[in-house]
Amino acid sequence: MLERLRTHAEEIFRSSVAAVDPYNAVKRFVALDGNVLRLGHEGQETQEIDLRPFERILVVGGGKATAPMAKAVEDILGPRLQGGMINVKYGFTTSLSRIEIREAGHPIPDENGVLGTKKILGLLQECGEKDLIFSLISGGGSALLAQPTGEITLAEKQDVTRMLIECGASIDEINALRKHISSSKGGQMARAAFPATTVNLMLSDVVGDRMDVIASGPFVPDTSTYREVQDVLEKYNLTDIPPAVEKHLHAGLEGRLSETPKEGDPVFERVHNRIVGSNMIALQAAGQRAEALGYKTLILSSMVEGETREVARVHTAVARELLRTGHPVAPPACIISGGETTVTIRGNGLGGRNQEFCLAAAMDLDGVAPRVVILSGGTDGNDGPTDAAGGIVDPLTVRRAEKAGMKALDFLDNNDAYHFLQKTGDLLMTGPTNTNVMDVRLLLVK
Amino acid sequence: MLERLRTHAEEIFRSSVAAVDPYNAVKRFVALDGNVLRLGHEGQETQEIDLRPFERILVVGGGKATAPMAKAVEDILGPRLQGGMINVKYGFTTSLSRIEIREAGHPIPDENGVLGTKKILGLLQECGEKDLIFSLISGGGSALLAQPTGEITLAEKQDVTRMLIECGASIDEINALRKHISSSKGGQMARAAFPATTVNLMLSDVVGDRMDVIASGPFVPDTSTYREVQDVLEKYNLTDIPPAVEKHLHAGLEGRLSETPKEGDPVFERVHNRIVGSNMIALQAAGQRAEALGYKTLILSSMVEGETREVARVHTAVARELLRTGHPVAPPACIISGGETTVTIRGNGLGGRNQEFCLAAAMDLDGVAPRVVILSGGTDGNDGPTDAAGGIVDPLTVRRAEKAGMKALDFLDNNDAYHFLQKTGDLLMTGPTNTNVMDVRLLLVK
Repeated sequence: MLERLRTHAEEIFRSSVAAVDPYNAVKRFVALDGNVLRLGHEGQETQEIDLRPFERILVVGGGKATAPMAKAVEDILGPRLQGGMINVKYGFTTSLSRIEIREAGHPIPDENGVLGTKKILGLLQECGEKDLIFSLISGGGSALLAQPTGEITLAEKQDVTRMLIECGASIDEINALRKHISSSKGGQMARAAFPATTVNLMLSDVVGDRMDVIASGPFVPDTSTYREVQDVLEKYNLTDIPPAVEKHLHAGLEGRLSETPKEGDPVFERVHNRIVGSNMIALQAAGQRAEALGYKTLILSSMVEGETREVARVHTAVARELLRTGHPVAPPACIISGGETTVTIRGNGLGGRNQEFCLAAAMDLDGVAPRVVILSGGTDGNDGPTDAAGGIVDPLTVRRAEKAGMKALDFLDNNDAYHFLQKTGDLLMTGPTNTNVMDVRLLLVK
Repeated sequence: MLERLRTHAEEIFRSSVAAVDPYNAVKRFVALDGNVLRLGHEGQETQEIDLRPFERILVVGGGKATAPMAKAVEDILGPRLQGGMINVKYGFTTSLSRIEIREAGHPIPDENGVLGTKKILGLLQECGEKDLIFSLISGGGSALLAQPTGEITLAEKQDVTRMLIECGASIDEINALRKHISSSKGGQMARAAFPATTVNLMLSDVVGDRMDVIASGPFVPDTSTYREVQDVLEKYNLTDIPPAVEKHLHAGLEGRLSETPKEGDPVFERVHNRIVGSNMIALQAAGQRAEALGYKTLILSSMVEGETREVARVHTAVARELLRTGHPVAPPACIISGGETTVTIRGNGLGGRNQEFCLAAAMDLDGVAPRVVILSGGTDGNDGPTDAAGGIVDPLTVRRAEKAGMKALDFLDNNDAYHFLQKTGDLLMTGPTNTNVMDVRLLLVK
């Protein structure tokens, strides 16, 4: 029975990843019907755009998954597409016929990225009312669409960002700063593109899918201000920031520079911000596959964060209750959750958050009825600095480990889930998937 | 809207506690119909016992909640009840007409408890085929039914137990030892009572309701052996245990003492072990009340353990998803969980696990739509060393704190949830409830 559950878990995981494959995600979201462009997922509200008023259709974008997204747009629009340019991470390229690809630095931005971003901004600024722009954004877009504003250099921008990170500033605080020392982030690409019409398609790698956070929202209204950035710098006593940054922020504070565009700004009137792939979309695809396989399914949340091993214990508590009383749903059941947990590293072993989740879960499942399987995997196929996507464990995993002379707690203490799961035969291997919508966790009970 | 949600949350919590009130729990589980005793919860499978073959009906028991349980049995059976004796914690007494109450030490057992246990064992040994015994067991029963075996003194028993706890031994390992140096635990009361018939009614304060763990299972088959106890002592290198304990365990190991009775032992043939109150029963009562108030309900698990603040984050992830997408159930929704979490104390503030849960949840709810309320409460009405049962928080809690000049993170870091929630007006106060089935957490979303 366990073998069957394990096979199902892996199949469900692969379905969830397939649903957020960048190429598939765009193809499922965008359809061309004569002169009408239809946007939206099947069965959900769709939006129609008449293409006849437009003289040109162009593509811009940045992110690790942008190349296959661009390929999908090329395949959908065919000769109607005039051209465009996107920035991708080195090696994350594909063969495109009309769109120019520039490879650039990620996660540390480099001059190639800055040059590409400058060209993209230039292209947007040239656009007019009769242009329709497809913007393609995915994880990594923030680094790949970097464009320090004014006299600020890339190195200075990175310096001040790093200072803020080291202070323990929140992601919202860091983003507020980033948006105010950039020419592209925080809705500024929308300002550049106006009065063109923009369809901004996003593959979200952000918990809760906040559009102003995905790649720092180049086409999305910003909620932060120069004033708030100043407050943040004061809060953390950051007085030794690079002079060019200080000068720029000071000018902004005095009203000598325009603010990032805000909600209600006319530049957003012709922007259609849509999410084509997200953790929730992956979870829903998992749910559909699980139902097709005969499981009652429940999506707990796509927004799970927190210390991995503790999060694992909550999941096993649900599994054990399910075995015992049939809550929260009667078996055969598939409980699904997503998001991105963290690992406080205390040891020097090898692993990733999904593998650590599985090791902790295996310890908690030790000895329960062999009718449950838990899978945790990164949708990018790449969990931590390993070649595994995550793991699949069951109530016999710890027993297998003991037979091999391994004590689970020692491996957990050493953050060494990879070597543990490798020996018990419980690694989940998918290879790189070219997408990333964070993690998917499955809990199957027969 | 928040006020209404808060009122509902408190009402649902009170209903869940009322369902496991010791007196109510016994009254709901046991009914007398002429000469037939009916055992079981309404709507579930019941069991009938014909009272005619019995000449005497007696009550024994031990635990903090045993006095009101005994009162319920007196009220149900009236003059049919001959008498009996129970051990309760000092001050946890009530007025009984036929059953003798002895007050004794808890959590540290004392000579009063030992004397009472000895008398109870004597009473059980006198019983024969024509006796029906009601045994009443609740949290604290392990300390209140302490009876060191052979020549071992209470102090020696406590010493070796403490040594094992300090080694970091698991609860199963500690219980294996306890049962093998006791005359009452691990099914030994069933052996004393045989060939009488026993109805053993338990109010469970244990995650997963393992009957051999509740008060160390005086009427429940034991799974541990002298051999395993010896292995545990060797595992932790405990060589300096009290000589009387060592001598006793050695005799057991050599087969000169009988083992605790195991599954299949004839002494259990006439024992009916039944749980009258548990965390799951409290959660189900919460679910019923929530449904009556118009909420769609979901019981996640009664077995939630782990570090409190991380467990809180998983719960808020569910709340935030519910607000955003209607998963796992569409609002108005009530998500319910139970169990008992732990707090790693790093500060020197005042609080308990339920209050810390609420503080961490409030931080995570800060800024979300004011359509969610989270309650966490101890069913005993007594969270940590405070006069509160727990807390009720909402998305405005942190804002109220800031207005009062408080920074939530500082209070969390100092484990000072009590003073935080006191100032924000978010403490849950019920007073002592005289029951304990661990904690109940509610998440209401409109």
